[in-house]
Amino acid sequence: MSRRLRLGMLGGGEGAFIGAVHRTAARLDDRYELVAACLSSDPARAHASAAAIGLDPQRSYADYREMARAEAARPDGAEVVAITTPNHLHAPMATAFLEAGLHVICDKPLAMSLDEGEALAALARRNNRLLALTHTYSGYPMVRHARALVKAGALGSIRLVQAEYQQDWLSEPIERTTSNKQAAWRADPAKTGPAGCLGDIGTHAYQLAAFVSGMTPSHLAAELCTFVEGRALDDHVQMMLRYPGGARGLLWASQVAAGCENALRLRVFGTQAGLAFDQEHPNELWFTPVGGTAQRLTRGRVDSAAARHATRVPAGHPEGYLEAFAQLYADAAEHIHAMAEGRAPRAEAMDLTTVEDGVAGHRFIDAVLESHRRDGSWVALAA
Amino acid sequence: MSRRLRLGMLGGGEGAFIGAVHRTAARLDDRYELVAACLSSDPARAHASAAAIGLDPQRSYADYREMARAEAARPDGAEVVAITTPNHLHAPMATAFLEAGLHVICDKPLAMSLDEGEALAALARRNNRLLALTHTYSGYPMVRHARALVKAGALGSIRLVQAEYQQDWLSEPIERTTSNKQAAWRADPAKTGPAGCLGDIGTHAYQLAAFVSGMTPSHLAAELCTFVEGRALDDHVQMMLRYPGGARGLLWASQVAAGCENALRLRVFGTQAGLAFDQEHPNELWFTPVGGTAQRLTRGRVDSAAARHATRVPAGHPEGYLEAFAQLYADAAEHIHAMAEGRAPRAEAMDLTTVEDGVAGHRFIDAVLESHRRDGSWVALAA
Amino acid sequence: MSRRLRLGMLGGGEGAFIGAVHRTAARLDDRYELVAACLSSDPARAHASAAAIGLDPQRSYADYREMARAEAARPDGAEVVAITTPNHLHAPMATAFLEAGLHVICDKPLAMSLDEGEALAALARRNNRLLALTHTYSGYPMVRHARALVKAGALGSIRLVQAEYQQDWLSEPIERTTSNKQAAWRADPAKTGPAGCLGDIGTHAYQLAAFVSGMTPSHLAAELCTFVEGRALDDHVQMMLRYPGGARGLLWASQVAAGCENALRLRVFGTQAGLAFDQEHPNELWFTPVGGTAQRLTRGRVDSAAARHATRVPAGHPEGYLEAFAQLYADAAEHIHAMAEGRAPRAEAMDLTTVEDGVAGHRFIDAVLESHRRDGSWVALAA
Amino acid sequence: MSRRLRLGMLGGGEGAFIGAVHRTAARLDDRYELVAACLSSDPARAHASAAAIGLDPQRSYADYREMARAEAARPDGAEVVAITTPNHLHAPMATAFLEAGLHVICDKPLAMSLDEGEALAALARRNNRLLALTHTYSGYPMVRHARALVKAGALGSIRLVQAEYQQDWLSEPIERTTSNKQAAWRADPAKTGPAGCLGDIGTHAYQLAAFVSGMTPSHLAAELCTFVEGRALDDHVQMMLRYPGGARGLLWASQVAAGCENALRLRVFGTQAGLAFDQEHPNELWFTPVGGTAQRLTRGRVDSAAARHATRVPAGHPEGYLEAFAQLYADAAEHIHAMAEGRAPRAEAMDLTTVEDGVAGHRFIDAVLESHRRDGSWVALAA
Repeated sequence: MSRRLRLGMLGGGEGAFIGAVHRTAARLDDRYELVAACLSSDPARAHASAAAIGLDPQRSYADYREMARAEAARPDGAEVVAITTPNHLHAPMATAFLEAGLHVICDKPLAMSLDEGEALAALARRNNRLLALTHTYSGYPMVRHARALVKAGALGSIRLVQAEYQQDWLSEPIERTTSNKQAAWRADPAKTGPAGCLGDIGTHAYQLAAFVSGMTPSHLAAELCTFVEGRALDDHVQMMLRYPGGARGLLWASQVAAGCENALRLRVFGTQAGLAFDQEHPNELWFTPVGGTAQRLTRGRVDSAAARHATRVPAGHPEGYLEAFAQLYADAAEHIHAMAEGRAPRAEAMDLTTVEDGVAGHRFIDAVLESHRRDGSWVALAA
Repeated sequence: MSRRLRLGMLGGGEGAFIGAVHRTAARLDDRYELVAACLSSDPARAHASAAAIGLDPQRSYADYREMARAEAARPDGAEVVAITTPNHLHAPMATAFLEAGLHVICDKPLAMSLDEGEALAALARRNNRLLALTHTYSGYPMVRHARALVKAGALGSIRLVQAEYQQDWLSEPIERTTSNKQAAWRADPAKTGPAGCLGDIGTHAYQLAAFVSGMTPSHLAAELCTFVEGRALDDHVQMMLRYPGGARGLLWASQVAAGCENALRLRVFGTQAGLAFDQEHPNELWFTPVGGTAQRLTRGRVDSAAARHATRVPAGHPEGYLEAFAQLYADAAEHIHAMAEGRAPRAEAMDLTTVEDGVAGHRFIDAVLESHRRDGSWVALAA
Repeated sequence: MSRRLRLGMLGGGEGAFIGAVHRTAARLDDRYELVAACLSSDPARAHASAAAIGLDPQRSYADYREMARAEAARPDGAEVVAITTPNHLHAPMATAFLEAGLHVICDKPLAMSLDEGEALAALARRNNRLLALTHTYSGYPMVRHARALVKAGALGSIRLVQAEYQQDWLSEPIERTTSNKQAAWRADPAKTGPAGCLGDIGTHAYQLAAFVSGMTPSHLAAELCTFVEGRALDDHVQMMLRYPGGARGLLWASQVAAGCENALRLRVFGTQAGLAFDQEHPNELWFTPVGGTAQRLTRGRVDSAAARHATRVPAGHPEGYLEAFAQLYADAAEHIHAMAEGRAPRAEAMDLTTVEDGVAGHRFIDAVLESHRRDGSWVALAA
Repeated sequence: MSRRLRLGMLGGGEGAFIGAVHRTAARLDDRYELVAACLSSDPARAHASAAAIGLDPQRSYADYREMARAEAARPDGAEVVAITTPNHLHAPMATAFLEAGLHVICDKPLAMSLDEGEALAALARRNNRLLALTHTYSGYPMVRHARALVKAGALGSIRLVQAEYQQDWLSEPIERTTSNKQAAWRADPAKTGPAGCLGDIGTHAYQLAAFVSGMTPSHLAAELCTFVEGRALDDHVQMMLRYPGGARGLLWASQVAAGCENALRLRVFGTQAGLAFDQEHPNELWFTPVGGTAQRLTRGRVDSAAARHATRVPAGHPEGYLEAFAQLYADAAEHIHAMAEGRAPRAEAMDLTTVEDGVAGHRFIDAVLESHRRDGSWVALAA
């Protein structure tokens, strides 16, 4: 096994859902050790949170710029940081650490705008550092298998792409009526950017569709809605998609879809077969030929290299969200080691989602915002 | 039990799928006896088909106008006819029989155009005759229960409507490469009208959404596609919907969705709860409150009058497509008896779909065609 | 099409669930016309019920022996009768009508004892008359397909058979606390025989297992239970099975399984593949090779002659319980016509369940009762 | 957070499935650090395996007795060991480490016999050390919720318990025809004990049934089978269960059930409601009242303290097998800290499975073997 990488963490203090997810994911496959963190910009909270997770108090920071300087200067300093803060901090933090020579693993959306995103991509490239983006759902073995099936031509040529993502946790104005911290920052354009539901989960649906189908739409016609009165951002988005070559699609995402937990689903239909994936049942993938019999492909029984690479336990022993997240960390580690060793990463690790997916996400967000402003007219996605 | 109604049949000769369905549906609840038919416009085929189903040869016709005249003149003549022919014959046949004083049960879409459809509606009203339309899926008990739940306010106010209908039987150009009769006339604009997949199954999805949600969209933005080269009509349609009051929706229908059999699904989300129905599993309906637990409601265990009315056998003894179709026949019988007796039909039988649904379907088709011509611009549905 | 057979009905007056099912099933495929009935032994109730279903009052009887005499004497008399009464009347009624030269379609269990059952089998054979038994679930196309798969060797050699049947409608002592007529006679040994749940649904599970697997157990070890205090018969039965050749199995049936509707399920595992059927989802059958991928086979897409024969509408258009019941009537009609014509029935109609299944059911019941008396010891099934 | 516990590992060298599972599970919630191991009794393999997982070579042992002595002597020595070897080593290893004053986390079955198991229980008690047993499936939140529902009386009084566990990986004689190490030792009575499938997965089904229902059978009637020729141990077991108070049940486990991956399922039916759990879909639990509507309870939406305690990520973000395994490690850590601090563990951690479950498992195995020897007669379980 390769040496464990030294990991720093930004955000993710006590009570933050996604911070704990990052730490668990980093730990799960034993390729990282957490050595430093800036868990909060409030020194007291930062240090309390550090103590709670057993971090060396000397390496708990309240100022991320100081952390970048200090860790870069240590021989045993962090080599890679995970950014788990609200969106408005992604770009400044990633910039600071990339400039300090560290690798970065960042939550999505990448930044607050396409410009910010492209600047980060350029910086990462220039400094030869990894900027991975945690599009978690692309870490599922059956999602990777779906991608492999499409690539191998098992569906024939793609005709239809249907992506959807429903939750119900924002059905009420909880950003105002409760102390839910996540709801608060996500509903605040200053922290979350111009896209609400669109940026939070619409981008996941979009990325999943692109990841599996291998296609990017050329045009979209979209509209945003805000169902909860007084909400500053959209809580529902729906759109039609056109792909080069004539394929069509629909994509919708909603955080007010009553009764839904985390219902991310993708269907892709080709000339020869169709497939369907449901994030809430990630150990299976449905594959059906035209006029044929539905097959329930399962993790552990499918044999693509891509799926095997992302599989820990045998068929019938379910893996879940944390394992998918861990897969991104494992693949990032492989990228980082490969960069250090001046070699290409293993082929299977190339499924890792990176700053390029983040830039594509901003192009998507911008196109949706533009189409919405133009009453749902067809808008071209920037190339 | 009321007296059996004397039924005539138009179309549905040997080899026609839907003709046998009509006859079985009419028989299932024992409210009709088949007494006359025009099973084909070819006399030899008409009579052979009549013999095959045991019909009195004296009452087998090859000319529907003659049948209208002859049956209207007999004291024991048909009181109601079922029209199961290709679309272009719906309006002339319905007109002939309504004018002859018979009731009509007609396949959808109602006619070839909105004008034709409105003329039929006016004629049926004027002559005080029933013109029922076989939107089969509204005959399912759990669909009627869904409608009852929405009406009773169990979902709160509706925010989202998602309707979809997928088949794969037209994935290849079978209208040209095989002798499939259904495919042939459905692909021929002269017989099927200007809408292919849109008219054939898109209208079912639209009607189901309206039936359950109780809402008609004010605007839609749509596009049609033809994936199979050389096909004269659309084989895929997708659209966004806007409802008065702000609700939103998507609707899509495709006959080239690889692997799909008859996948008509509806989801409706309100401020308080959501529901989901899948035509391929018609004995159940999913109901989930915001933030709550999914409930699998089942035919036979739900207690709405609407569902009980449409239920024949207890919970756990599945009913299916033929029973749903039979429900339309049963409800039509109740309407016809009520008209004869000068009373209102039983409340539950008011769920029967009629010429009004057909007219609404043509408004929908026209709006989709118009939006498609205008590159997916928002188009208002005629009131 | 063959001539419609003239059908008489015994039992099934107003309020009887299964009587209406028989009539609907007989009507569904249009091979029968109901011409006579003894709907109740109470003349007033018999005639009221006859009127309610539109039967000629001259052919409504209150005494089944008189009906046998009268109908046998008429040139247009019933040719076949359906027996839908409580169990204790099955044998005397079947005897009377077989002796009068009619064919018989009888509910299961066949009789009150193995002796009665064997006498009926002998009588039917002697008189060359059909005695069909309504093991409804063997009428499902996917059950017949399962049987065809096993016969064709697709499972390899059978190792395990798991059959189960759960309902919850007898969870409370409703035979005493309500006016449920079905519960009343089913709980009364004088009318239902020595087996409660065992006879009512255990025999269905047993027959389904035998029908699909093609195997009859050589031995069983069983026990009966009565969970509801004061109930005269068993409401739960469980057992282990041994088959010749070494296969093993379990079978259990319960009418106090809280939450269950009509959960009849069968799984068969062979050396090469396994299959699973669930009566509540009868349009599908699961087939999985050793170490392989589960396939969801569907009615309308599978291509065995056996399944096609029992299929009315295309894939994706669900069929249900009434269609399965109708299949038995259709197959019985084919048998009756064949007997009249002195030919063998069509091969596919040989899947019809008959008096032989009924005799096998009594052997099963007797073996279970014997094993139960002997505290669950292994008991051989009579050959 | 409490201090991380120092963990040693026995077995689980390269290629061993369950060793990696233990390490991942121990890491997942960050309550342990791996400090020492005896990964193989072959020194070269032990050290290669140690190097592969980044273990200090000084603390890699090839002799577990030496490891017990050495680690017990170090101030920073392992405090707890995980035993992941074939069964025959469980008791000697557990004995050595318990005697050296360490806590033990051991795979099931606990030992080779009931006597060995009881001796271990006595030793653990005497030395006041934890001996946890990894009945993984009891770590699932929805299993713990099921247990909580039963305890709270939500099912009324229990009538029926149905437990089953199917796999197909031993459908062929792979212990002889392949180099599968797991198959080899599991098929060898000297290493696995007198029970094959019974000990390997039958005990899981039994433990799950007891864990959820809160009941232990008083008697069972069982038989073992060996379907694969030449196999030394059973590959299928089936039995009937009687519980004190009159409840009944069935349990079967098979490793030759074609097509099954890891199909552990439990159903419990009470006087008021029933529940169903399927290990392959561990994020949900079905709960249905008598005559009522099935509810799909989901992890993250149910609110029992027991389920919340075992939950890491929100509803709709699936957890799986590794998380369930990790829960046992987390609960074991709580027990160990509590023992050190002289306090009771947190109430929710009391769901941890321990040596007592192991002893109960041996009573079960012995009763099954005894019943099998007596041709399936009813045998009392030792109290």
